[in-house]
Amino acid sequence: MTPVSKLAEATGHRIVVVGAGFGGLETVFRLRGTGARITLVDRRNHHLFQPLLYQVATASLATSEIAWPIRYLLRGRKDVTTLLGTVTGIDPVAKHVQLEDGPALPYDTLVLATGAGHAYFGHDEWEPFAPGLKTLEDATTIRRRILTAFERAEGTDDPDERAALLNFVVIGAGPTGVELAGTIAEMARTTLPDDFRNIDTRTARVVLIEAGQRVLANFPEELSSYAQHSLEKLGVEVALGHAVSDCSAEGVVYGDKRLPARTIIWAAGVRASPAAEWLGVAADRAGRLQVNADLTVPGHPDIFAVGDTVSIAAPDGSPVPGIAPAAKQEGRYVADAIKQRLRGKTPAPFRYRHDGSLAQIGKHLAVIDFGRIRLRGALAWWIWGIAHIYFLIGLRNRLAVALNWLWIHTLDQRGARLITQGRAVIGDTAAPTSEIASQRLKSVR
Amino acid sequence: MTPVSKLAEATGHRIVVVGAGFGGLETVFRLRGTGARITLVDRRNHHLFQPLLYQVATASLATSEIAWPIRYLLRGRKDVTTLLGTVTGIDPVAKHVQLEDGPALPYDTLVLATGAGHAYFGHDEWEPFAPGLKTLEDATTIRRRILTAFERAEGTDDPDERAALLNFVVIGAGPTGVELAGTIAEMARTTLPDDFRNIDTRTARVVLIEAGQRVLANFPEELSSYAQHSLEKLGVEVALGHAVSDCSAEGVVYGDKRLPARTIIWAAGVRASPAAEWLGVAADRAGRLQVNADLTVPGHPDIFAVGDTVSIAAPDGSPVPGIAPAAKQEGRYVADAIKQRLRGKTPAPFRYRHDGSLAQIGKHLAVIDFGRIRLRGALAWWIWGIAHIYFLIGLRNRLAVALNWLWIHTLDQRGARLITQGRAVIGDTAAPTSEIASQRLKSVR
Repeated sequence: MTPVSKLAEATGHRIVVVGAGFGGLETVFRLRGTGARITLVDRRNHHLFQPLLYQVATASLATSEIAWPIRYLLRGRKDVTTLLGTVTGIDPVAKHVQLEDGPALPYDTLVLATGAGHAYFGHDEWEPFAPGLKTLEDATTIRRRILTAFERAEGTDDPDERAALLNFVVIGAGPTGVELAGTIAEMARTTLPDDFRNIDTRTARVVLIEAGQRVLANFPEELSSYAQHSLEKLGVEVALGHAVSDCSAEGVVYGDKRLPARTIIWAAGVRASPAAEWLGVAADRAGRLQVNADLTVPGHPDIFAVGDTVSIAAPDGSPVPGIAPAAKQEGRYVADAIKQRLRGKTPAPFRYRHDGSLAQIGKHLAVIDFGRIRLRGALAWWIWGIAHIYFLIGLRNRLAVALNWLWIHTLDQRGARLITQGRAVIGDTAAPTSEIASQRLKSVR
Repeated sequence: MTPVSKLAEATGHRIVVVGAGFGGLETVFRLRGTGARITLVDRRNHHLFQPLLYQVATASLATSEIAWPIRYLLRGRKDVTTLLGTVTGIDPVAKHVQLEDGPALPYDTLVLATGAGHAYFGHDEWEPFAPGLKTLEDATTIRRRILTAFERAEGTDDPDERAALLNFVVIGAGPTGVELAGTIAEMARTTLPDDFRNIDTRTARVVLIEAGQRVLANFPEELSSYAQHSLEKLGVEVALGHAVSDCSAEGVVYGDKRLPARTIIWAAGVRASPAAEWLGVAADRAGRLQVNADLTVPGHPDIFAVGDTVSIAAPDGSPVPGIAPAAKQEGRYVADAIKQRLRGKTPAPFRYRHDGSLAQIGKHLAVIDFGRIRLRGALAWWIWGIAHIYFLIGLRNRLAVALNWLWIHTLDQRGARLITQGRAVIGDTAAPTSEIASQRLKSVR
């Protein structure tokens, strides 16, 4: 049998992978040795370890500790060309990918791993007041807003304004929302109190608003109620069964309640990349591509799609969750499917295997659902921490993250408490996410 | 004798310190135990270790490794209130400091430690094309531009554009300019080559332009020529005796030469803070306050000024240099002078003691001038590294910086190679420093 590498090399097979998240990168890693000419395109120069992004937003980790230059990760792969570029469209007839600046990229096989962003359910006007958390810039924006709110509370004499500044609202009680709310509460109670003279940061209110009936809805009910109880012990107010009906510079309205708040974080909805629009094919309500059992796009047998931009069912009929391990499994599957095809074979359908779900709530507080085995508390927290350090790429980042966590949990100090971008940005809380530095709250009111 | 603390406490003496750089922070540290009510105001929430800022700009260190939240550094000092705020003026008659947002701060003694920014010698229109390096945001801007230039060179087919993208110009051959030029050359030669497929990063040109006749003009001549020789061995082209006559999106013009370049960094001139303007007193050409021998502002015996915003002569008649140890000495002197005055005494004049000058050029390459003792090469480089780690605040940052340097110098890898802020920012090289992300080179041309 001719090895795959010879076949791909002989035919000059060109593979374009769009997106260097968990799915796209795994595809490229697994295509090693095929001899195909691979091009990996991403809008950013770095791969991001999104599961720990909330720790950048809450000043626990530095940006460089959870991000790696993509081309550095692929430095040893002479068969891979990495390009920084924004895809604007796909021509499936001519078979090329259009970039915003630069030439069209021809492909024989295309892999779309373009992920998802946050969605405001038709209320995009809320975004300036309630930023979401998907990118490093989102994380530094949220970090700046949280820290600036405490700074402004320290500086103001107006008791109403001070109260609004010390109200922190997180919308959406999935893992990201729970992790953010828990960490902000811990920061206000243990990291910050000694730093301020005019305010008691322990009086800060952290309110977690969720439209559904429980937190961590994807976890078993016992773990959800444990998580809720743990959050409440940390001082988080959990408001279930309340949809948010307005976000503004004033604060948030949910149910029949109106809460003045200067810091609102959106962790409620996601919307897939415009991959379906590029191809003019069907998408679900969240914009995700419907794919065949071999992860190809219907009508486009040479286009695969993986990760958060895809909607597909697990063998038990439940939807495959939008988590890193799922994207990686899909990436591995697609790389293997491409190899099979190069050999002239038809790949077996993709079967998702769920290994478990993890969420951190606070120090010594986490929940893990391994299916039959369910863990909570300190043991779950240690497993959560070790697993996340293990999945980080590179010894340097593992050491750096471990060092930071050691500091945070033994000394209650967070090393990355920096307000950056722009000038002093007092009043930035209500500035649009484009973050024009000099914009002030006053001018928005 | 009544202790100072009782005196200050009894009189309710109020001290306002503006600026939390080396000078201001040292003043506050040294005022411990006086019993005075101290307020420290800064435009930013962090103290910055400026001597290593160029390492953030060249992707060697992360922002949080050289910056500390000011209020965290003073968390144990119940006598100090830290405020995030921008000073807009001083009323020396009513004796209060005006902030942009918020109430006026009354003082009995005022300490101005407001530092300096970069200056373009009347050519502020160059700033968008040749950013300077004073803040963390400056450093991430320069880092983004350097990394984006390599990305765009990899993506373009136009040989002229590629050449311009691979030309890196540093203007000014003081310590910052030398350190930047040396590090960019090392990055192009040792860190990046394996990451790119279409370009050879070792062909990048790094040009260091200096109007004077030698690099590191403040060092003895033998160390200057050693530094120049070392830079040239690293691949830096040193152009001495050339004033820059234009910076634009096209490149730089110096002497009779015109060099197309997309990355230009300004390390040539500084201008003091507007402290002299606030007070309506005399300033030198660089905007620095002329101060009395006790570091008070002429005509304002209750206002001290320290650091880069001050012009004062050393005992030998030479100007006190704008370096961290000088600012710290002045800060210590002012704190002691305030204590003396509280005791009713007149402080002796300030005498600057020069301990030495250090500059790093590259790996195993540094120069140190201790006066009689002059060092260069590997030994100087180790002393430079150990001294800088020693002067960092806190064990965590010392460990983190040491860890990064270990990685850089054993594996030739730099951990902080992140392009952040804005979207993919292709073409951002010529965007103004306000960094509106979507702005493109095209639109500037």
